[in-house]
Amino acid sequence: MDLKKAQTDPILDPNQSNYVYHLALDIGGSLAKVVYFTKDDDHFVDGEEGLSHRKALEKSNGSRQYPVLNGRLNFKKFETSKINDCVEFIKSMKLHFGGSQRQAIPGSQPIAVKATGGGAYKYADLFKERLGIILDKEDEMDCLVAGANFLLEVVHQEAFTYMGDQKQFVQIDQNDLYPYLLVNIGSGVGMIKVEGEGKFERVSGTSIGGGTFWGLGKLLTDCKSFDELLDLSYRGNNRAVDMLVGDIYGGMDYSKIGLSSTAIASSFGKAISDNREREDYKPEDIARSLLRMISNNIGQISYLNALRFGLKRIFFGGFFIRRHPFTMDTLSVAVNFWSKGEAKAMFLRHEGFLGAVGAFMSSDKHGLKELLANQVVQRTPSKLSFAVDKIIHGQPDGDESIECSVYAA
Amino acid sequence: MDLKKAQTDPILDPNQSNYVYHLALDIGGSLAKVVYFTKDDDHFVDGEEGLSHRKALEKSNGSRQYPVLNGRLNFKKFETSKINDCVEFIKSMKLHFGGSQRQAIPGSQPIAVKATGGGAYKYADLFKERLGIILDKEDEMDCLVAGANFLLEVVHQEAFTYMGDQKQFVQIDQNDLYPYLLVNIGSGVGMIKVEGEGKFERVSGTSIGGGTFWGLGKLLTDCKSFDELLDLSYRGNNRAVDMLVGDIYGGMDYSKIGLSSTAIASSFGKAISDNREREDYKPEDIARSLLRMISNNIGQISYLNALRFGLKRIFFGGFFIRRHPFTMDTLSVAVNFWSKGEAKAMFLRHEGFLGAVGAFMSSDKHGLKELLANQVVQRTPSKLSFAVDKIIHGQPDGDESIECSVYAA
Repeated sequence: MDLKKAQTDPILDPNQSNYVYHLALDIGGSLAKVVYFTKDDDHFVDGEEGLSHRKALEKSNGSRQYPVLNGRLNFKKFETSKINDCVEFIKSMKLHFGGSQRQAIPGSQPIAVKATGGGAYKYADLFKERLGIILDKEDEMDCLVAGANFLLEVVHQEAFTYMGDQKQFVQIDQNDLYPYLLVNIGSGVGMIKVEGEGKFERVSGTSIGGGTFWGLGKLLTDCKSFDELLDLSYRGNNRAVDMLVGDIYGGMDYSKIGLSSTAIASSFGKAISDNREREDYKPEDIARSLLRMISNNIGQISYLNALRFGLKRIFFGGFFIRRHPFTMDTLSVAVNFWSKGEAKAMFLRHEGFLGAVGAFMSSDKHGLKELLANQVVQRTPSKLSFAVDKIIHGQPDGDESIECSVYAA
Repeated sequence: MDLKKAQTDPILDPNQSNYVYHLALDIGGSLAKVVYFTKDDDHFVDGEEGLSHRKALEKSNGSRQYPVLNGRLNFKKFETSKINDCVEFIKSMKLHFGGSQRQAIPGSQPIAVKATGGGAYKYADLFKERLGIILDKEDEMDCLVAGANFLLEVVHQEAFTYMGDQKQFVQIDQNDLYPYLLVNIGSGVGMIKVEGEGKFERVSGTSIGGGTFWGLGKLLTDCKSFDELLDLSYRGNNRAVDMLVGDIYGGMDYSKIGLSSTAIASSFGKAISDNREREDYKPEDIARSLLRMISNNIGQISYLNALRFGLKRIFFGGFFIRRHPFTMDTLSVAVNFWSKGEAKAMFLRHEGFLGAVGAFMSSDKHGLKELLANQVVQRTPSKLSFAVDKIIHGQPDGDESIECSVYAA
């Protein structure tokens, strides 16, 4: 299956040679995220044993066991307000039947699909009615953490720092990963102290998140989408809208307390001017001011919580970031500023799919294992593990896939 | 002098019997605050010794020494964008000459007036040109802290808690005042750890403050003033604009992590709706959502800093609050929520005048003392102290005066 084709044209290609084995959903306040696994036919372990084993052995570099499956993890997102697009995509791809090879059997038990996020509750009836599937709800925090842990432990070049236009991948020693602070920036922001697999606590959060950026941005500009607003912010200058230290001090620094004249004293503080109306401010300046205000604030509260619990690493995830250089830069600068250089903001390549990946992983115990047991492998593995071979870049909007192997551990 | 009259009609009454002895300014990004001392003639210590001493003795209840002055500390504020109104007020009251009894002497040294805030730098030339006075700049943080310390130590019923419509004055033992966190909410927000007189450190702050409320409010509503926006917010309901936990979870709580269905998941998160424009949202709902967003955020960051430095009391000051019940309530609820009931938000009666009072106090060393030495008392006191007799409520906009006695310590 051509991934790009699937993204632009959700109608299933009847000639596609992949099997969809597994599906999981994370339906948040703004975005619905879908993760699904497709098996590459030429890596099919069952049936063509000789070839696939050789290939798998080459790939796994002499690892401890044979892969039971080779394929791809695919990532796709929809706006929650257009949840029907998501339903249609699943329907057209027949993801809910495990791919095109399967059909619903009349009278059989409805298929359960792992789902997390508030929408797993809110849209449970819709999915049952439209697709005949039951959303098997997994706790949001459990999934977020499981997804982040999986990605950080297994995927090469998943974590990186970003500052001053410099992206730097960080290889994290698995033995030195915990504890860390996971900051998930969705519509709102959740902050979770992660101490190990399944060992975590939501310690803080803020309501000033991606929904605030997009909500206020929509009220203040003519932007039609979150991405348009982000692009706009890139061209703006917040100095036209924000009150800077220099604006108050007649161009001077307030050096005694370490505030430079260009530091923001008051976000949107210049918009109080009597002589100017909304139309007098450029939308790009407003967008940039909003982005700085929100990123700065998240960076600050994150750092204060990392400090509180003695966590040396802060990982930022969630769809607010969208690999937007300026957003990452502002978060990094904020963490750097408030920590006086002692803490570093880190980012996750699959930032927006933590919850969905976690929901996917949660079915290790039953979902994927059962599918495998029934259809692919003769033996029933007691536990499955993934090894990631390669990340295949998709379109610029962030969809991509991970080429990976599934092992019976 | 009738205080109310002076507030509504800044033209000096030629029959007024008060002397203005002293003046100090705090010119911030949004508001210029003026504190000045007026002496009550019938408490005039110099000249009518017998009467005034008796009265003073009655007042001071047999305190350690005679007051050298009895009078009032007066509080007045102006919008910084209308700084000329402030200049005119000072001019018409002849405050810069120490009241109506004095005149500028041609060729004499210009009079220095204590001033703080960024505007003390920005408007220095304006004050020199228009009033012939030199703004003697005092550090902003020094003044804020000195003002807060003075008010908390000397003024009865200065500090209070506010929650669920209940205002409760707190009498603070002076020996148990320090350390505390002072959160000054002006255009931006400064957070200062105060450990004693002159012993403090600015530990944090946020650019999301009063200027953000008024700036964003002005862009989003037709309000003509900060106070109008505050009043508007009082009638609104943030649920129309904010994305609540229940909106994401289909009306349910997310009880596992202690979030009720009415908790705000994303401020302005509902404004992302495709089908609604700005005109479809009520201005009062927008105003309320803004106020909750900003108050909540300040409360949260304040608590995190208090926790960080082990400070049990958080005092909120600055003109953002304006004794607005809903603002105080939201700050209190935020501190209560994030501290799980362990910390309490406290407020200051003269919240907006901390810096101005501090600037006023800073001239203890020279300004007021010299005035007293030259004009009022025969002896030159080495140190002055204030005792506050009574707070005289002024107009509802927050101006008021404190009846007080000045002692030579």
